[in-house]
Formats: sequence, structure tokens, C-alpha cells
Amino acid sequence: PGDRVFLCQTVSGSYAEYGTVNECYTHPLTAALDFKQGAALGVPYFTAYRALCIKAKIQSGQSLLIHGASGSVGIACIQLARSRGLTVYGTAGSQDGLDLIKKLGVHHAFNHREEGYEKRIMETSKDKGVDCIVEMLSNVNLQKDLDMVSVNGTIVVIGSRGNVEISPRSIMAKEANILGVMLWNSSEEEMQETVREVVKGTESGELVPVIGKEYTLEEASQAHFDIVNTKSSTGRLVLIP
Amino acid sequence: PGDRVFLCQTVSGSYAEYGTVNECYTHPLTAALDFKQGAALGVPYFTAYRALCIKAKIQSGQSLLIHGASGSVGIACIQLARSRGLTVYGTAGSQDGLDLIKKLGVHHAFNHREEGYEKRIMETSKDKGVDCIVEMLSNVNLQKDLDMVSVNGTIVVIGSRGNVEISPRSIMAKEANILGVMLWNSSEEEMQETVREVVKGTESGELVPVIGKEYTLEEASQAHFDIVNTKSSTGRLVLIP
Repeated sequence: PGDRVFLCQTVSGSYAEYGTVNECYTHPLTAALDFKQGAALGVPYFTAYRALCIKAKIQSGQSLLIHGASGSVGIACIQLARSRGLTVYGTAGSQDGLDLIKKLGVHHAFNHREEGYEKRIMETSKDKGVDCIVEMLSNVNLQKDLDMVSVNGTIVVIGSRGNVEISPRSIMAKEANILGVMLWNSSEEEMQETVREVVKGTESGELVPVIGKEYTLEEASQAHFDIVNTKSSTGRLVLIP
Repeated sequence: PGDRVFLCQTVSGSYAEYGTVNECYTHPLTAALDFKQGAALGVPYFTAYRALCIKAKIQSGQSLLIHGASGSVGIACIQLARSRGLTVYGTAGSQDGLDLIKKLGVHHAFNHREEGYEKRIMETSKDKGVDCIVEMLSNVNLQKDLDMVSVNGTIVVIGSRGNVEISPRSIMAKEANILGVMLWNSSEEEMQETVREVVKGTESGELVPVIGKEYTLEEASQAHFDIVNTKSSTGRLVLIP
């Protein structure tokens, strides 16, 4: 009792000043992070860990493209990939987003609203393509990812808002791997590993959530509107009770 | 010299009575198989082995759906999966095809031209879906596969003849794995394993190519026409010099 904790699952809901949560879903919040950052930790960092380390099994020395890097999961992927020794490509849709991801350590930053950015990514990779891509908006980008991934490379599908047309021949020609991620499918062992590694990263200072806009609890519906309609993100939106 | 061999790659082309082939691409043809069957061995069985054993890493006890099972790669997949202890679902587009795949040991056969066959496949799997699907016509079937694959299941893309619209949310929700296969991307070690295991299977009698229609060399262009335009296959088409 009295411990500072963060969580990613509640019994009573988290749009609240107080809440009930099963003890096994609470995790120690390192002193270096405030509660706003704690609120931005659970789902994004656990998802990033599952995508990169459990699904894609990233290795030091590989290249990673974060397609949509300035949102909360993207930021978590940047920090995780940097901590594991990858070369990190990232995209954002605004100058603020680009400034943010560069500050967070992306090696190669691209504006995904600029014509021809895919070509510049390929040139940067010396036309080999990138070893791994994490994709936040698959309905728009999945075929572009198939064009940019390396032979035997991996695309991890984290987000999508609709259907997409693709050419399965691109999957065959490169022997690409497309893997879906859904945090709630984690086995108990995987979840334990995920929590352990994320907590370790917060304690070492490598994983530090970035807060975007803050809202009062009364503004919750506005926050939902904004997350769907804002063209470029710069960190996690949080509700402050 | 004088050894009976089969091959899957030549220097001078294989639409011929005699040909030049690099020794490393010739493999011993077991006495139980005739030369027609030898001609039907290389690409289909090597591709099936790569799809099931190297990419999908099938395990005894799993369920496998061969979406398009009466063609040469599909037949190779049936025999390989049966030899490894899987429960095999197969589809074909004609009564001849269905008779053939049942004779070859498919546990559950479905006509993919019949309305609602996907639903019957799901019912047969007790609505769990199948652990692995090999897909010969991804432009038509990829979304159906995403609907029929189990949670954390694998879809291996072997063939496609155009684009397809899919919902990436299906990939996420089930944490599905979509893997491309292209035989020519094999590493030297993978190719050695592939040849060794296929030769072993022909010698044990578990892998036995099925010949569909036979053509003379002069009819080669007709064979190409038929393979694209025939609605249902029943084994490998071969040219007889």
C-alpha cells in the first residue's frame, strides 16, 4: 500500500480519480517518472515490446522502420529499438513530429506526407530495404511496407483503420513475413517477460514516455475526437483527473 | 553416369529430349518412380517442403488446410503433411479433384466452388480455425484464409495471380502470421535439407508425384494455355519428349 504503480488493465475503468485494479496488473513506477508518464506506459510500451521483441524478434545491428513514429507506440518502439542497438528509421506527418522523433534518437527521419518518401527510405537503405517495419496504419501503408521491406524481412501490423489492397506476389517474391500484434493475446509467460523488460527499461532510463496533449476528465470525448482527427501525433494523450 | 536422376534446374532448358544440368542440381530418382514422376518431383515437392517445414514449421498434431490441394504443389503438401502426422483439410474445384485428394489421404475435403465451404471448414475445426493454411490463389482467398486461420495461426502464400483486398485488423485480432514462399530464395543449407528430406520421402514411399495430363513437346504451348484456363487440376502436367 502506498507504492507508486502503473497499470494497463482495470476492473472499474481508468477514466476516474480512483479505480480498482487486480494486484497482478499493477507494476512498480520508477521514481524518475511522474504519474502522467505512468499513465502513458502500460499499453504503448507493452505493445511495442510484444511487437519488436516477442513477435519480430529484433536483433542488434538490424534496421527498423517505424511507420508512424511520433505516436505513443511509435515512441516506445524508438526507445526500445535504440536500447537494443538497431538502426532506426522513423516517419511522422508534421514538423513537430519530426523534431520529436529526431530528439528521441531516430537515425533517419522522413515525413510520410511528402511525395516520394518511400524512395528516399529505399535509397537510405542502399536499396536493400529495411529488416523490420512496424506499421501503425496498415490500411494506408501495407503495400508500401511490402515494397520497402528487405528480402526475408518482417512487417508487424500494430494498427489499421480499414481495408487495403495488396499484391500477394510482393509477399512471395521477398519471402516477407507479416505478423499481427494484439497485446491481449499474450500468454502469461509472455506478459511476465514484457512487464519485466519494460520496468527494467524505465529504471535504466532508456524507456521514458512522452506526453502529448493533456485533457481534464470532462474533456474525454474531445480527446477521442482529437486522436482520430489529428493529422500528426506527438506523444500520448492523457486525461488528468 | 547412367544413374537415374531428377532435377529442378537446368542450364539448357527442360523442354527437350536431352539437356545440360549442373551436377549439384541432380538428385537420385528412387526406382519406385518413373521418369514422368521424376519430372513432377523437383519444384512442387521442394516448394511444399519449404512452405511447410522451413517456413511454417509444421508439427505433428496440428491442422493444415491446403487451399487448392489437387494441383502438384497441393498434392505434395498432402503427402508431406500426412507423413508428419497432421490433420489435413483440402479443397478442390471439381469432383475429380475431390476424389483424388481423398484418395491421397486428406481427412476433410471441400469443394471451393460451393457456397459456404468456409463455414463448413470452420465447423469441422469446432470454430477454432486451422493452425496452418497453404494458399495457392491468394488474390482470391487471402481474406478467407484470415477468417479461417486459428489464433496465432500461419498462412503460407505460395501462389497469386493478382491483387486482393484484405482487412489488416484480421491479422491483428488473431495475431496471424502471413509468410511468403519463393523456392529460389533458399539458402544453400536450406536447399540441402529440402533435397535430403524429399529424396528420403520418395524412398520411403510417402512422397509419390501424381501425373495429370501428358503432352508431347509440340503441345507445350497448349499445356501453358491449359494450366491457366483449366478450372480444376488433378496432378502435374508433364511434357513427354
